Amino acid sequence: MQPLYQRYKATVRYVGTGFHGFQVQPGQRTVQGELCRALSELFGCPAKVTGCSRTDSGVHANEFVIRIDAERSSVPPEKLPVALAEKLPPDLALISAEECSEDFHPRYGVCGKQYLYRVRNCAVRDPFLYGRVWLFPRRIDDSGLDRMRRAARDFIGKHDFTSFMSSGSDTPDDTVRTVTAFSVEREGEEIRFTVRADGFLYNMVRIMVGTLLEIAQGKIPEDAIGAILAAKDRAKAGMTAPPEGLYLDRVFYPEIPEKR
Amino acid sequence: MQPLYQRYKATVRYVGTGFHGFQVQPGQRTVQGELCRALSELFGCPAKVTGCSRTDSGVHANEFVIRIDAERSSVPPEKLPVALAEKLPPDLALISAEECSEDFHPRYGVCGKQYLYRVRNCAVRDPFLYGRVWLFPRRIDDSGLDRMRRAARDFIGKHDFTSFMSSGSDTPDDTVRTVTAFSVEREGEEIRFTVRADGFLYNMVRIMVGTLLEIAQGKIPEDAIGAILAAKDRAKAGMTAPPEGLYLDRVFYPEIPEKR
Repeated sequence: MQPLYQRYKATVRYVGTGFHGFQVQPGQRTVQGELCRALSELFGCPAKVTGCSRTDSGVHANEFVIRIDAERSSVPPEKLPVALAEKLPPDLALISAEECSEDFHPRYGVCGKQYLYRVRNCAVRDPFLYGRVWLFPRRIDDSGLDRMRRAARDFIGKHDFTSFMSSGSDTPDDTVRTVTAFSVEREGEEIRFTVRADGFLYNMVRIMVGTLLEIAQGKIPEDAIGAILAAKDRAKAGMTAPPEGLYLDRVFYPEIPEKR
Repeated sequence: MQPLYQRYKATVRYVGTGFHGFQVQPGQRTVQGELCRALSELFGCPAKVTGCSRTDSGVHANEFVIRIDAERSSVPPEKLPVALAEKLPPDLALISAEECSEDFHPRYGVCGKQYLYRVRNCAVRDPFLYGRVWLFPRRIDDSGLDRMRRAARDFIGKHDFTSFMSSGSDTPDDTVRTVTAFSVEREGEEIRFTVRADGFLYNMVRIMVGTLLEIAQGKIPEDAIGAILAAKDRAKAGMTAPPEGLYLDRVFYPEIPEKR
């Protein structure tokens, strides 16, 4: 293959603990920074990386979609994951790549995302899960779990999520989002929250999870979600769960059928 | 409770990546060293830690049994995991503790151990599994898996395992061990080897796994295990699998019923 201008759509996975989020910041180790460096080394020319989302420090990604623009590349997409592996650090991997159309944009083209939030509900920590779950020692019993499940249903639908957006963030033009699925499941010593929406506001998942855990503990009534949404006031919702339990889990585009 | 001489039986779990094995070595970070430091801080007096086994650098433990001898302690056993948590580093946790009899010895009293060896059989690495599996990119197909399963059966029983012991190790008086179970299972992109025996020689699991993977690839015949054992010659067996895939999984004592 002749080295040519080449555009790839690719999926990366990373452990967020060692990164100051996705987006390049001067003097900080970021996912975008590591990708650009590794790709430029591989191609022998500058590469541009566009991400599907910003993620905060310490937040993980099971599947994070990027577009790669290479000035010249003779690497076929299917060879990219293995070719890049030795140039990337161990906490970051490119897990798949394909050709993409000229007009593909990983952020503007998104039609939905799924986040996973992992809580370890156990007094004793597990060294294998350090930085990968939120350690929440106070036991959530089955009735607390049921309260969270019932409350989570009230997030589903089209709402203004201003109450579930960190106040420090730049206010977007539109704070209405549509949540299409929200599940709360216990798996062994973990409670796993999985939420899917057409888009998310800043810290929205972390505030929803923090609020649900306060509902589980009886600090917030289980029927309060509607009133909290209606108030459009961050102060009415619960705490913000810490970043280490949060995973960008899947990203959806109109052209990709949902296979799982 | 009056501070008194106290003896505990306890179970620890650790990610082996950052440790130079279990046993204290001058100038090295070891599991035993970290435990002694943390326990001495907690008790305010010297504590002695005796382990069930030596483990090498990079080898992990799901359950590693220790005995703790505290000159003075008023900490009841059930409080020990939480009390110690903030004094231990994040890659090491004490997960349970109980009182034990004067004559309990975690190494001499062992009647069996179970090791797990995890192979990631995939060309692309997973950042969440870095240092926790052996990345083995060449695909093992179902017939290779079946060859490993048939060959693994020949390890079961009472044998002289000299051929499966690293030549650099001090030769023990007795190289006969009894393997009571050996399973080879595919789980997603992983192949998991689980082996149980009354005891293990130095590097025995890693050489057994390395040999089975050579059998899967057709480099060693699947019916060769009997002859390799009979030869009592390390050179007849296959490669030594690296430490990062190995987990001390369970330790058995006569007084503990096998609950799982």
